[in-house]
Amino acid sequence: MADTMREVTLDDLDALEVGAAILGTGGGGNPYIGKLRVREELRKGRKIPVIPLDELPDNALVVSLGGIGAPVVGVEKIEEGEECLRALRAVEQEVGRKVDALISAEIGGANAMEPMLTAAQAGLPIVDGDGMGRAFPEMQMITWSIYGQRSAPAAMADEKGNVVVFRETQSDKWLEDLARATVVAMGAAAGLAQAPMRGEFVKRAAIPNTVTQARNLGRAVLDANREHRDPVQAVIDHEGGRLLMTAKISDLQRHLKGGFAVGHLSLDGYGNFQGDTGRINLQNEFLIFVRNDTVEVCVPDLIVVLDADTGHPITTEMLRYGQRIAVLGLPCHGLLRTPEALAVVGPAAFGYPDVTFVPMQSRGGIR
Amino acid sequence: MADTMREVTLDDLDALEVGAAILGTGGGGNPYIGKLRVREELRKGRKIPVIPLDELPDNALVVSLGGIGAPVVGVEKIEEGEECLRALRAVEQEVGRKVDALISAEIGGANAMEPMLTAAQAGLPIVDGDGMGRAFPEMQMITWSIYGQRSAPAAMADEKGNVVVFRETQSDKWLEDLARATVVAMGAAAGLAQAPMRGEFVKRAAIPNTVTQARNLGRAVLDANREHRDPVQAVIDHEGGRLLMTAKISDLQRHLKGGFAVGHLSLDGYGNFQGDTGRINLQNEFLIFVRNDTVEVCVPDLIVVLDADTGHPITTEMLRYGQRIAVLGLPCHGLLRTPEALAVVGPAAFGYPDVTFVPMQSRGGIR
Repeated sequence: MADTMREVTLDDLDALEVGAAILGTGGGGNPYIGKLRVREELRKGRKIPVIPLDELPDNALVVSLGGIGAPVVGVEKIEEGEECLRALRAVEQEVGRKVDALISAEIGGANAMEPMLTAAQAGLPIVDGDGMGRAFPEMQMITWSIYGQRSAPAAMADEKGNVVVFRETQSDKWLEDLARATVVAMGAAAGLAQAPMRGEFVKRAAIPNTVTQARNLGRAVLDANREHRDPVQAVIDHEGGRLLMTAKISDLQRHLKGGFAVGHLSLDGYGNFQGDTGRINLQNEFLIFVRNDTVEVCVPDLIVVLDADTGHPITTEMLRYGQRIAVLGLPCHGLLRTPEALAVVGPAAFGYPDVTFVPMQSRGGIR
Repeated sequence: MADTMREVTLDDLDALEVGAAILGTGGGGNPYIGKLRVREELRKGRKIPVIPLDELPDNALVVSLGGIGAPVVGVEKIEEGEECLRALRAVEQEVGRKVDALISAEIGGANAMEPMLTAAQAGLPIVDGDGMGRAFPEMQMITWSIYGQRSAPAAMADEKGNVVVFRETQSDKWLEDLARATVVAMGAAAGLAQAPMRGEFVKRAAIPNTVTQARNLGRAVLDANREHRDPVQAVIDHEGGRLLMTAKISDLQRHLKGGFAVGHLSLDGYGNFQGDTGRINLQNEFLIFVRNDTVEVCVPDLIVVLDADTGHPITTEMLRYGQRIAVLGLPCHGLLRTPEALAVVGPAAFGYPDVTFVPMQSRGGIR
């Protein structure tokens, strides 16, 4: 990829914010607060080196970081700022050694910024990649887990000083259940460090180059805004995606359930899509796009909702009745389309056993 | 106390079961399964030494053990048998040394047996005492916490192999909240090891001699049964308690809420109490006894419901409409009646801010 990042600089942050939010597919939490925190660290002179996947030493110890919680809460409940650092220290204590590099659990949304913040605080580099290539609502929906790395030992820390260690878990789904119950008790926002991994594994299992991808995607949108080109088209061109519908939100059902934002939105098409109706089901993230009662795009492919004018992403908690939006489908990375991945992040895993995943197109594959 | 226990023997188990269940004040879980497990260990030739509190070395490391969960579930969900042992090992890993002795978190109910089982498995002694002198529904309602010992690090293990460590908690109430959420996710039954303590502290904070007390209390009932004396009177005599009412259960409301069994039972007096009505409110344990709309006995004093004929205790999950019962009030130990204790285990802590605790009588005090 041209223009591969070697460090995170102040100039990257606005673009990273936009790109990460687009890849968040409606969820993943808003990266805005994280951006401000990372900016503050960079202005203090801290550095955030970025290691390309293929330069990661095989024997490096890498830990996956991210915030966990319900995004609706994240908007109001601001992290204290060192949650992930405390969780990282707890995992280091578990494995008995210092970590060499950090990687984002999910590039989509706020968790693009979390490892950058912790990297600046801890003096560590981040790896150019992540475990989802987008955002997903549950912890076991991550390539570390899909490709054989156990997430335990993992650790969760909240802003009040509570630190909980998941030392042994019977499966990564069990870790998700235990961590979800814990984060709800913590007030629905916490930092999580998980899956201490060897560099050799990370090279095989990470969705590659996604930090650079998010930055470049955001740049494409911001450049289009500045140059008065169509920002929606800029996203489509950058990601090889497709415009699914321009529409007005005609109904919106959204509630908190077990720490998740769940619900759906109904759409009335306009412009080239006049006469079409649409529906998007969500669980933190947009899961399924239905046109005129037929499923057209579904997880793990990315369903993205953009403001029709600015091309900026709209997260599930910012959806409003009457909004004019552009709905895009973006193809997911090949690592999310294997049979073992689809068992975990395909439509059946989200409670849609009758929906068959038909990939939007091919992009990348297992190395 | 005469006849102080020096080890737990096969002959003690039936009496321990009855005595522990009485001190469980309706909750604490049924000690029956634990008794069978301890019996099995003893029959294999394992020993369970009992250390009187005053012989505990000041520098001994003692860990508090108990099962956690909703008793209604405990009846059906049988532990795998090494939950507390795995939790103990996790706490040992946290503090970096082996434990010298175990102590029961609560003598009332199943948790009288848990440390005995783990002691047999691990080759450790138990201390003659506990942290409640009865049963209480929440973890912070324990003398370790009341008298200044933080419960973290604590560890919880379930029958599936999940092990969660509560490494740092902002308060013991936070530990309760986090552990309760975790145990609900685990399926509402788990083993918990908490509060690694020095012997010097245990001597000051433990309710003393309660293992012996439970055994002797149970013996008094079983002896009365065998000798055709009144077993209810045997309990009253042994514990210095009072018969509050003989009654028929005329109404029973009980449901699971956040991992707790909560509700109340209504009583119609008979015999000497003909014409009286009564009400007992419960949260796992019996909390408050009301006669004719006036609170007569409340936590931390013990409200005990016995089968009117056999004198055997009836736990909340075994209550049935129409049962004929004897309701007893037993005075709690002095360590539960101090201002700092009443702030945690008095009626206000259970959501009854308008109820004033009037002690049944004095028995013991802070040493």
